[in-house]
Amino acid sequence: MSQRPMKIAVDAMGGDDAPAIVIDGARQAAERHTDPQFLFFGDRDAIAPLLARSPALAGRGEIIHTDSVIAADAKPGWAVRRGRRSSMGRAIQAVKEGRADAIVSAGNTGALMAMAKFSLGTLPGITRPAIAAILPSRRDAIVCLDLGANIDCAAGNLVDFAVMGALFAQTVLGRTTPSVGLLDVSRTVMEDREEVHKAAATLRRIDRNFVFHGMVDGQDIMSGTVDVVVSDGFTGNVALKMAEGALRVYAGWLRETLSSSWRGKFGYAVARGALRTMRVRIDPRRYNGAMLLGLNGTVVKSHGGIDAFGFAMALDVAIEMHEGNVNRRIIDALDPIHRNVTSRREPEGVT
Amino acid sequence: MSQRPMKIAVDAMGGDDAPAIVIDGARQAAERHTDPQFLFFGDRDAIAPLLARSPALAGRGEIIHTDSVIAADAKPGWAVRRGRRSSMGRAIQAVKEGRADAIVSAGNTGALMAMAKFSLGTLPGITRPAIAAILPSRRDAIVCLDLGANIDCAAGNLVDFAVMGALFAQTVLGRTTPSVGLLDVSRTVMEDREEVHKAAATLRRIDRNFVFHGMVDGQDIMSGTVDVVVSDGFTGNVALKMAEGALRVYAGWLRETLSSSWRGKFGYAVARGALRTMRVRIDPRRYNGAMLLGLNGTVVKSHGGIDAFGFAMALDVAIEMHEGNVNRRIIDALDPIHRNVTSRREPEGVT
Repeated sequence: MSQRPMKIAVDAMGGDDAPAIVIDGARQAAERHTDPQFLFFGDRDAIAPLLARSPALAGRGEIIHTDSVIAADAKPGWAVRRGRRSSMGRAIQAVKEGRADAIVSAGNTGALMAMAKFSLGTLPGITRPAIAAILPSRRDAIVCLDLGANIDCAAGNLVDFAVMGALFAQTVLGRTTPSVGLLDVSRTVMEDREEVHKAAATLRRIDRNFVFHGMVDGQDIMSGTVDVVVSDGFTGNVALKMAEGALRVYAGWLRETLSSSWRGKFGYAVARGALRTMRVRIDPRRYNGAMLLGLNGTVVKSHGGIDAFGFAMALDVAIEMHEGNVNRRIIDALDPIHRNVTSRREPEGVT
Repeated sequence: MSQRPMKIAVDAMGGDDAPAIVIDGARQAAERHTDPQFLFFGDRDAIAPLLARSPALAGRGEIIHTDSVIAADAKPGWAVRRGRRSSMGRAIQAVKEGRADAIVSAGNTGALMAMAKFSLGTLPGITRPAIAAILPSRRDAIVCLDLGANIDCAAGNLVDFAVMGALFAQTVLGRTTPSVGLLDVSRTVMEDREEVHKAAATLRRIDRNFVFHGMVDGQDIMSGTVDVVVSDGFTGNVALKMAEGALRVYAGWLRETLSSSWRGKFGYAVARGALRTMRVRIDPRRYNGAMLLGLNGTVVKSHGGIDAFGFAMALDVAIEMHEGNVNRRIIDALDPIHRNVTSRREPEGVT
């Protein structure tokens, strides 16, 4: 890549506690990575004092003032038509114009995907980008995609996701030869989902630098059976939210149970240190930073309700994806596959 | 209904530890319910001694000898063509011929669904039966369907599931006016799943004896936002298995954490009683007994790896469904809805 230091376009106004957690997150990332420069898009009056208080960002952060912010409930289509001058829109534009190498935002996911797709376009041969994120599992962290960008997927889209997800796992999780599974029902009662089985047939046939494990079911996700779980965005989103919900409910029950008797309270007091290591293990901040894979640019989405520690993790993902040259490797890996005919859903219009 | 006591056809050979857990489960159910009679289909030599050791079943259990069993990995189509004389096949036949009021099996789900559908048929106007089960949630137990019988569903199928699920929740969970939600992605990025939104439009319009809550996402399931969660069988199966997996992984982490230090071990020893109440709360045996809703007969599926306590819970579900006259109420509730035109997937052939 280029010789100049990496530049990250940061939507300083996206997320619940922006811009404070954004600037502080950048400070944390800057302390870990000596190289990157940050372009902060947003309200200069709000950002400047925060930046002044962050010595680690001295000489490494530039503010580009913007007047407007994409609302959390704005429709993707509205964002594409009207949001170009927003902090998110201008940060994406900086990537398009080559002034930045990546964009990170904790703002509206739908708007980010739609504007980035409209402005940056997709990688050659890819009709549907996907949202990929890292989740904890019993064995180790895993990658899941798509988590909500595509409600229906043809076999060819799932094949693209498998290839992109494997490269993501190599780069961000350091798996040399990641294993990839296609999400399927645990025991099909009446019929198979045809596109999933077509995708499996293709994945068995092609040359690849990952292991294709075959089908996995919902239980396999958190068991860590494979490094990368591939599904359509409807199923993936429901599974992700179900897991988040299940863990929250379980933790709540545990708290209630332990606080309902003196023995429970005393046991908790004694074991508190041990229980803290468990909380760290499933801390959602550690898994922050979803990658919008398949776009012609590095686009990372941070959770909107995250703190500075979590936002810094999202910046880490952007840095690793850029340094790992992942988009180039996706193009190279998919090119021979796309030469064979596999069905793909057409790119959909922004609605 | 009829004046004679209820008769339950029991597939005595289905499940990992059949027939022992089946007969002992029937004994436990017989101790709770004074009325029902049991027809045990299976190997007489294996069943008779077990029955002789169960005084509660004296005069209430009859053995119908069968020579064959549907294997756990048998294909549904094979079961329909070749399985009629199996313990499962003959138990279903007893319902068809009016010699029993319900069938309960811990055997192969796909075979049970296919044979029951072929032999009993569906309720008027229903093209797709669904698998419904009870799950724990933060607030209270809830009903989820479909959990794997239908990979794709048209809007009309989802409407049927909502109506059937609400009647199931009324009968088995005692909710007078259950709330029903349609499972959707948490924040749609690019597009909506059309059939889900069409189903919502119908559910808002029709007369119903439940509250239609609208859309719910994956997190809402275990939060207990609604009493009944409706989805296609692909998404429902993945969500169910994901939740089971997440809870198992969380419990495993908790065990590891507490056994990794003396403080953890000591804390666990002190709090053990409290933690036991939590285990009871999420004990999967308490939620055993999935109902195959929409069939022209009461068909209940027990988990295959269950013990006698769990199998008795499945028998309870069958008894409550029969006593609650649920199939008649489903017909009455759906009749006016089916008079309006709503799209439904055609019944699918057995493959």
